Amino acid sequence: MATELILKTLDKGVLWLTLNNEKQRNPLSSQMLSTLTSVLDEAYVDDAVRCIVISAKGAVFSAGHDLTEMARGPDETQEAWRPRILSILEACATMMQRIVHGPKAVIACVQGTATAAGCQLVSACDMAIASSDSRFCTPGVNLGAFCTTPLVGIGRNLSRKHALEMALTGEFFSAADAERFGLINRSVSPDDVVAETQALAARIASRSPQSIRDGKTAFYTQIEMPLNDAFEHANRVMVEAMTSDESRQGVKAFFEKRTPEWG
Amino acid sequence: MATELILKTLDKGVLWLTLNNEKQRNPLSSQMLSTLTSVLDEAYVDDAVRCIVISAKGAVFSAGHDLTEMARGPDETQEAWRPRILSILEACATMMQRIVHGPKAVIACVQGTATAAGCQLVSACDMAIASSDSRFCTPGVNLGAFCTTPLVGIGRNLSRKHALEMALTGEFFSAADAERFGLINRSVSPDDVVAETQALAARIASRSPQSIRDGKTAFYTQIEMPLNDAFEHANRVMVEAMTSDESRQGVKAFFEKRTPEWG
Amino acid sequence: MATELILKTLDKGVLWLTLNNEKQRNPLSSQMLSTLTSVLDEAYVDDAVRCIVISAKGAVFSAGHDLTEMARGPDETQEAWRPRILSILEACATMMQRIVHGPKAVIACVQGTATAAGCQLVSACDMAIASSDSRFCTPGVNLGAFCTTPLVGIGRNLSRKHALEMALTGEFFSAADAERFGLINRSVSPDDVVAETQALAARIASRSPQSIRDGKTAFYTQIEMPLNDAFEHANRVMVEAMTSDESRQGVKAFFEKRTPEWG
Repeated sequence: MATELILKTLDKGVLWLTLNNEKQRNPLSSQMLSTLTSVLDEAYVDDAVRCIVISAKGAVFSAGHDLTEMARGPDETQEAWRPRILSILEACATMMQRIVHGPKAVIACVQGTATAAGCQLVSACDMAIASSDSRFCTPGVNLGAFCTTPLVGIGRNLSRKHALEMALTGEFFSAADAERFGLINRSVSPDDVVAETQALAARIASRSPQSIRDGKTAFYTQIEMPLNDAFEHANRVMVEAMTSDESRQGVKAFFEKRTPEWG
Repeated sequence: MATELILKTLDKGVLWLTLNNEKQRNPLSSQMLSTLTSVLDEAYVDDAVRCIVISAKGAVFSAGHDLTEMARGPDETQEAWRPRILSILEACATMMQRIVHGPKAVIACVQGTATAAGCQLVSACDMAIASSDSRFCTPGVNLGAFCTTPLVGIGRNLSRKHALEMALTGEFFSAADAERFGLINRSVSPDDVVAETQALAARIASRSPQSIRDGKTAFYTQIEMPLNDAFEHANRVMVEAMTSDESRQGVKAFFEKRTPEWG
Repeated sequence: MATELILKTLDKGVLWLTLNNEKQRNPLSSQMLSTLTSVLDEAYVDDAVRCIVISAKGAVFSAGHDLTEMARGPDETQEAWRPRILSILEACATMMQRIVHGPKAVIACVQGTATAAGCQLVSACDMAIASSDSRFCTPGVNLGAFCTTPLVGIGRNLSRKHALEMALTGEFFSAADAERFGLINRSVSPDDVVAETQALAARIASRSPQSIRDGKTAFYTQIEMPLNDAFEHANRVMVEAMTSDESRQGVKAFFEKRTPEWG
């Protein structure tokens, strides 16, 4: 059941997770959020998985929260509705932070429209490649609820002027805009987006997995610290890394001018 | 009297505030600062105002502080001069933060040169559209006083390399540079800048005012927090928004495929 | 001995510090780090030096740490190795922060490949001009040790997507990429890079030295603070600056339409 909502394909160390609810526009429903969280957790402990790609079936990457699920039920009291909504928002924030604080690189491969929490999903990934016809939107102001939670992630990717342009207008922005804003790494032809993302992910999959795990964690930790604390934290992580077996293998291979074999 | 320093025009929910001291190059004098603060405060509580534009008469958007006012008076002691300067700086910081923490979107429409605190005014606005012939400058290093206060706002819009290039050289940068740096959203032809800004502001004016008020406040609050705290704060705001009357109206209109009417 | 590792040339108030170990690819060895720290400290107290440029001899700007020095010695215990590595990392972080917190503007003039800690050196400078054929790389993931410490500086220059693209792939990026990412101010033709950097540095050297000292320090201090604290700090610095002798000279020259002479 859960596996149907997200398709999994492993290709040369790259795990493709494909949101598979095209008909409903791949909403981040409770079920999708829990499924995505659990497939990520499985992937994080699977040594065969060296890099993760999140993609989606159809013309919509993800439309964000499921508005039908978010609406107050016919028999639901206001008192019951609010904590139910909050628990969905918390599940969403938990999933986003599982990506940020996870031990493996996660790349968004965007081939359609990424809206609201779907756009936040793009922002939460370490990198993002998008087809040139994809679009990005935080439309909350059209719906009476500013995209406050999506802007947590988007606001940490974009300059303030661009983040607020997205949030205050609620309009669609092109892949070229998203590239200019820094929301995605680059926009490529629709014909090439899967191959380019796979090539990028495969290169990352060939790198030292221990160094990516420790380095990614350290990056998101130090980036929130004052400069001096950041250096102290980074130095502590770096001394472990540079005296590790993995580093010794890497440096040895470098001096022998060959490709290193990891763990 | 005060109304003459800043012209006010309301057009389809968009309040244009036009700095009207072209002869003195629209300085942010004490009088201009207090006038701007008070017209903003009036606009914030006026339901007819849904979006605010700050523009200026003449070839200079604003030259920043009034150097004549900042100079030590002929009969002024050093002991009296310093607290007087400090009080002007504090009034300036208060005005900038009234924009940042205000409940309505504020857009700068720049048609001339924005210098020092005038450039900071652009940075303090949520968005900025500039004519392609406008220029941006933080010239303090030419005057013996680095633009430290302008760089508070500018440094939160630009990357460090660009912010320091502006501050250390004190030179003029083009609208194209400002767009590349992220200080403005875009540069447009001088013939189009008013119409483009009005169109942008009118779109924002048609959005849910409650969602803009709560969302803008939440954005500037969460963006200064560590990631986990930011999500917690955003979730608390979001659950209120998604269970509000305004949201119910918005979602209902969305499902009925019509433009929502906001209370 | 130490002076040979770094060449010093003073030209119109601009001190060029040229890393001079082309053969070893200008590594940031312990000796290079201590030499660079001490020449910076000398330059900071030398009134003849008004702006500093860091450049390098040869096709490699700097390859980062000296891998030979970082490797465990044949007779070195694990217990001795780790604190030795840590002390080199700390010396590196200290040098980088001597640039950031120093009282004079420091510009990187990059004419070759800047790798790992060498790339961090570029990020630590206030500004950077690079020849169009220079390249930038944080290759730790190829060597079993993610470039965690370089990403402290790089992550404060670039958007997260770009910073992680550099760190996770470990690949070479062009000067055009570095300009787009915000790691450098601009890329210029190899024939022009020295002249352009000298012209930029000479302009900064003509500005008020006191204002650059106080302003640079205040910039890096306030940028790490919440907005309201940042304004308070900046106001305190600004009132001193605006009531200083240097400011009075600058404003007087401005009103007299002449170039100011600084202290």
